[in-house]
Amino acid sequence: MAEKEISQAVIGRLPRYFRFLGELKDEGVERISSQELSGIMNVTASQIRQDFNNFGGFGQQGYGYNVEYLYQEIGRILGLDKTHHLIIVGAGNLGQALANYMNFERRGFIFTGVFDNNPALYGRKIRGIEVRPMEEVADFVEQNNVDIAVLTIPKNSAEEVAERLVSVGIKAIWNFAHVDLKVPKEVQVENVHLSDSLMKLSYMLERYEKESRETNE
Amino acid sequence: MAEKEISQAVIGRLPRYFRFLGELKDEGVERISSQELSGIMNVTASQIRQDFNNFGGFGQQGYGYNVEYLYQEIGRILGLDKTHHLIIVGAGNLGQALANYMNFERRGFIFTGVFDNNPALYGRKIRGIEVRPMEEVADFVEQNNVDIAVLTIPKNSAEEVAERLVSVGIKAIWNFAHVDLKVPKEVQVENVHLSDSLMKLSYMLERYEKESRETNE
Repeated sequence: MAEKEISQAVIGRLPRYFRFLGELKDEGVERISSQELSGIMNVTASQIRQDFNNFGGFGQQGYGYNVEYLYQEIGRILGLDKTHHLIIVGAGNLGQALANYMNFERRGFIFTGVFDNNPALYGRKIRGIEVRPMEEVADFVEQNNVDIAVLTIPKNSAEEVAERLVSVGIKAIWNFAHVDLKVPKEVQVENVHLSDSLMKLSYMLERYEKESRETNE
Repeated sequence: MAEKEISQAVIGRLPRYFRFLGELKDEGVERISSQELSGIMNVTASQIRQDFNNFGGFGQQGYGYNVEYLYQEIGRILGLDKTHHLIIVGAGNLGQALANYMNFERRGFIFTGVFDNNPALYGRKIRGIEVRPMEEVADFVEQNNVDIAVLTIPKNSAEEVAERLVSVGIKAIWNFAHVDLKVPKEVQVENVHLSDSLMKLSYMLERYEKESRETNE
């Protein structure tokens, strides 16, 4: 099944489908129509069908989709049938918070190591895993089959550290540093720019208040 | 200036413009053309002009935009000329990490209080601010002019807590709980679904590896 040229918008919606289908499955729902899914997810039924058609449609019939099948298939498309080993680079507050976020392991993302360049942190343990110096990252990545690095360091060193991670074989970077990384195109990057997200909320608040003022004038 | 019906995509790009303009400003750049900005930001110049036209265009002339003016204007549109008081609800690892993320204060987001329903945490201090019981949230929000709540609690209690926050006057929720909240339309919600983000990265990795295999076959 060709999965090329699927838009970022569709890809961005896949985890949400996966989440809702997982909840339906846990509730014991066996089949669901695009109309019913539409009602739950607050997306139009035609949007759902269009999105699913990117992946062959998942065989909806008169009586809807098989929830378990759809959940498994979307999970497979998301690569969740594989195990990924990840390291956290930056053992500060955010790195520690992510390390402690157990939920990821359920999905096959195994937290394998944590690195920092602050000697005061070396040997300190986060969820039983000790903080190591960056000098050890090359050997560690190779020996532990690590494919994903979580980057939780300040922006000024992010570019340099990302380059180093790529050079030791990291294939994907989950980037929390507030900078757009320049990496070779074969390296996947997903950004979580928290400040951008908070500013978007601030924008919505500002716009709502402005509209309210204008309505009341 | 009317700011209605601006697409989510445009809104999502505003903080990124703001970030790049801030960097240019710090580097002492005074004017920049949409072509130059395009080169730095990896967005087409026509996209930039289209985005800016939603807000009146910011007066580009032959020799480009005034960086300082554009930075200030986009900041104003994002509501960053105002001060917001925020509370963190959920004093776990992620809540603590966000509380310690100083950068937000620079943008006018003042971390004012932190709440939890775990008595073992009451009185413990995070950046000098003590964890309070949820019972105190109504008075606290009123007395401290709090408009934003950061929700860093598990999904099963998120809906109930969000309702409570709305009832005490919270106008915007920065939601890290892995659930889509149902709140009245006058309450603004920005979601940071970390698991969804990691799954998206996993998808990109999976697709790249699949395409590589197919190319090599």
